[in-house]
Amino acid sequence: MNTRQTISIGDYLLLRLKECGIDTLFGVPGDFNLTFLEQILHRDGVQWVGNCNELNAAYAADGYSRLRGAAALVVTYGVGDLSAINGIAGAFAEHVPLICISGMPPLHAIRKRLALHHTSGSGNMEDVMQSMAQFTVAQSLLTPANASAEIDRVITAAMREKMPVYLQLPSDIVHISIQAPAEALDWTSDILDAAQLDRAVKAIINRLDSAERPAILVDGDAHRFGLRKHICALGHAKQIPFSALVSGRSVFDEQHPLYRGLYAGTKSPAAKTIEGSDCLIAIGARFFDISTGIFTHSIDESKMIQIHAHSVEVGEQCFSGVTAEAVLIKLADHYNSMSTELQADINIPSVPSVAITQPTQDDPKAVITHATLWKRVESFLKAGDVVVAENGTSMSGISGIRMPANNMFIAQSLWASIGYTLPALLGSMMAAKDRRHILFIGDGSLQMTVQEISTISRQGLKPIIFVVNNYGYTIERIIHGPNSLYNDVQNWDYTAMSKVFMSQSEVYTSAVRTHGELTEALVQAEKRDCLCLIELQMDPMDMPDSLRAMGPLVAQFDYGM
Amino acid sequence: MNTRQTISIGDYLLLRLKECGIDTLFGVPGDFNLTFLEQILHRDGVQWVGNCNELNAAYAADGYSRLRGAAALVVTYGVGDLSAINGIAGAFAEHVPLICISGMPPLHAIRKRLALHHTSGSGNMEDVMQSMAQFTVAQSLLTPANASAEIDRVITAAMREKMPVYLQLPSDIVHISIQAPAEALDWTSDILDAAQLDRAVKAIINRLDSAERPAILVDGDAHRFGLRKHICALGHAKQIPFSALVSGRSVFDEQHPLYRGLYAGTKSPAAKTIEGSDCLIAIGARFFDISTGIFTHSIDESKMIQIHAHSVEVGEQCFSGVTAEAVLIKLADHYNSMSTELQADINIPSVPSVAITQPTQDDPKAVITHATLWKRVESFLKAGDVVVAENGTSMSGISGIRMPANNMFIAQSLWASIGYTLPALLGSMMAAKDRRHILFIGDGSLQMTVQEISTISRQGLKPIIFVVNNYGYTIERIIHGPNSLYNDVQNWDYTAMSKVFMSQSEVYTSAVRTHGELTEALVQAEKRDCLCLIELQMDPMDMPDSLRAMGPLVAQFDYGM
Repeated sequence: MNTRQTISIGDYLLLRLKECGIDTLFGVPGDFNLTFLEQILHRDGVQWVGNCNELNAAYAADGYSRLRGAAALVVTYGVGDLSAINGIAGAFAEHVPLICISGMPPLHAIRKRLALHHTSGSGNMEDVMQSMAQFTVAQSLLTPANASAEIDRVITAAMREKMPVYLQLPSDIVHISIQAPAEALDWTSDILDAAQLDRAVKAIINRLDSAERPAILVDGDAHRFGLRKHICALGHAKQIPFSALVSGRSVFDEQHPLYRGLYAGTKSPAAKTIEGSDCLIAIGARFFDISTGIFTHSIDESKMIQIHAHSVEVGEQCFSGVTAEAVLIKLADHYNSMSTELQADINIPSVPSVAITQPTQDDPKAVITHATLWKRVESFLKAGDVVVAENGTSMSGISGIRMPANNMFIAQSLWASIGYTLPALLGSMMAAKDRRHILFIGDGSLQMTVQEISTISRQGLKPIIFVVNNYGYTIERIIHGPNSLYNDVQNWDYTAMSKVFMSQSEVYTSAVRTHGELTEALVQAEKRDCLCLIELQMDPMDMPDSLRAMGPLVAQFDYGM
Repeated sequence: MNTRQTISIGDYLLLRLKECGIDTLFGVPGDFNLTFLEQILHRDGVQWVGNCNELNAAYAADGYSRLRGAAALVVTYGVGDLSAINGIAGAFAEHVPLICISGMPPLHAIRKRLALHHTSGSGNMEDVMQSMAQFTVAQSLLTPANASAEIDRVITAAMREKMPVYLQLPSDIVHISIQAPAEALDWTSDILDAAQLDRAVKAIINRLDSAERPAILVDGDAHRFGLRKHICALGHAKQIPFSALVSGRSVFDEQHPLYRGLYAGTKSPAAKTIEGSDCLIAIGARFFDISTGIFTHSIDESKMIQIHAHSVEVGEQCFSGVTAEAVLIKLADHYNSMSTELQADINIPSVPSVAITQPTQDDPKAVITHATLWKRVESFLKAGDVVVAENGTSMSGISGIRMPANNMFIAQSLWASIGYTLPALLGSMMAAKDRRHILFIGDGSLQMTVQEISTISRQGLKPIIFVVNNYGYTIERIIHGPNSLYNDVQNWDYTAMSKVFMSQSEVYTSAVRTHGELTEALVQAEKRDCLCLIELQMDPMDMPDSLRAMGPLVAQFDYGM
């Protein structure tokens, strides 16, 4: 870093955020962050989207980051941080880069340990930092002396590791001018060891060349680290069949002839390909209860090549000083790929959407069930759609269908905090306004974070939202207490939400019970240019078969019963 | 402890909660807590109230605890804990006893450090405990070996210190039988040192007897530790004038002739009494920014007697091994109080509510303003009312009026997490269904936690809810950015909430702009036997004078501007 600039601390932070590709900041105002918010309003190229509450802001930032590669939210010390922390922890679990900026009390008050609102009153203002440090990979309390170095260090960590970080910005320093680097931040430098990279790639090639049944298994990190095209290049060059764990959906194109379906343990579609492989290239793969049919996976680790973000394991050999991206580029180069043919493969031709008005075999008067619903959904989806699915019946149902080409799939399958998807939808739409967004969410989940539909409307966004109303927590009913009152939720009039939250906008709403009504709603959703809210009224104990099978496994695991 | 019983861990925990006076548990189900929830359903004398989300559950438990003296909430590990933690931290700041029970993954999985949903996937399941430990005074991961001892230790801490605590209950141990004490838990034992108590009381009497201008100043702990009647006894016997900090409202009766109004710094009504006292008995007093008009208080500490929950400071002398209750009882005894006359004073005769239909001097067509609104509110309130006020214009407005006799006032003045009051209202009503409850909440605050109105309706509760709709965060506007978009919130149709959330119940709704409309709404609220939802449409920059005065002080403090 040679040249330096004179810039206020707040503006410097905004500059760095911009360099991360962030043009929208989410959050909630509070007296400790108002002057920073004012800087946002006055800075070109960044905009403020106020959320109804901070947890929703964190979820929105998470959704934005999954499409944009980075996101930021601004909250207020204490009440804001701790309201948002479940969303931060979700980003930590799911490996989503997120820069959480907390408007702190003024430095003079922190140093004097004054008793302030939004604190415990004891003068201790380290307690929130202690909590946030559990779920972020870098943290800092900014001061005029450390601001430029610490902003750069913390943001580098977020971008390099694709993980959440936490910055405390005292209210009285945002306008203070500092001398700061004038060059853009380079978070990719000083990672690679060329010799290690060569050794790692050779070890992989050795394995691959002698393999008879190679396979590729991808997970969420493949998204986060932008590995899609490199994986495609490798897979295409060697004609390696591939699969994805649930968190890695839509890294590959599920319409591709080499796609073998999801891998989710020994009973899943890709089990034979993955478990039978003698050279499994696992990219960022993480095997957890839900992603493996409750630990039913059976993979011989000695036959695995594990490509992590910043290391590679080939059997018992471990190579650090490498990146997944560099390894995959080298592999693809070796196999003579990245040809023009391949580029076509990456942008696979769209599978034309089946006309939704085509006759179906379902009796129009028959009530919709999960057994038939998801096939209808499959034909409704179009190439390029962003599909957001909440945990529960929605996630299970959507696991059974193939996504259209160039799809993006958003779900929180590991952290699995219900209510995540509605605010995440706001975020993903702000990140990609030109793409059609479709959300599937249950009633119990929707009730967690419902108010954020107001922000979606306020921003003029037009998603198609399906509320799977099965009158309670169906995913819990199949685990324990099918008829117990704790699994019931209050039945709302979901279509009336348009009156409360979106009274100034055009909204299409429909409450659907039968196939005929569903067909009509899909026709309307297809042709309307507005937010569409479709309530699917379904039986509390109807669910996809995969969920019905999972319930007893979870009960056995959780309770030994 | 001599006799023992054989009981399941879950039932033992429920037994202890019952001994704390808890008959309602709040929370959200998740697979790790379902079998415990089943135990709740099957146990006499406790009921389950499911909330829309966990933060709301924590707020509800907080509201319940303020009336009942203890509360419990049940969440799920990770997603539930961290969604609730802002409510737990609020209870920590505000000194509210709260027992947070987290349904943990099964012990076998914790011990094997398995990658599970609701965790970061790394096997680390201590991170949530680390966070919760910042905001609770006792914590434990329960096992069959430690359950009875740890449940008793942690609940004792909550009840003795009137603070939140945290219990992790693995999903596979709730039904395991243990040998546990058969006697009720005694959390009051082994605190008192009789000699210290005598010395402390003598020191106070020495001071009091030589004082010319004694005064009493109470704060929230006076509520929590049940000191009301003892303070009344002392105050009455010695005819000592009294005041309250904002968190200590309704410890004393504000209609009492000895009441000198709120103390909130040097410009507040009771400033002369409190700051001019030569012997100020401060009971649980905590002086923080908001409670002191941004540190404008001026109190000579050498003239203070500070009675804390478990210690007393008389000037520079400090006495431990005492309790506030024991000290106050001794003082009252000394001054020959607790007479029948005094009992009458405690249950002061109700001030009859002024008939709300009486003619007012306000033009019925004039729009309502804060300058006139709160006088109308004052006359609408009745003896015995529970009044809940959100931070912002509501809290400021209500600070300017005197509460009716035997009132209970609920607000979160230190932690000041907006959105607290609507769920807290649910909790306080579940704790005292026979009392009339009135909530004042702003639009920005309501949007944070709005869904919990559905649970209020589901439980058949009938509060009167005033939504002060001033089209944004008015409290922020007066601090910074009066016209900045970050201080705007989406305008909802608040009265339409009845259609979404309460479609099965009778609800009275009214949107009010003028005094005439307000009069009619108050008449209806008075006579209807249903939930009443009254939207008060007010100008964004209209606010109580006290708030208008505070804004610049906060700006100066926060930003140095």
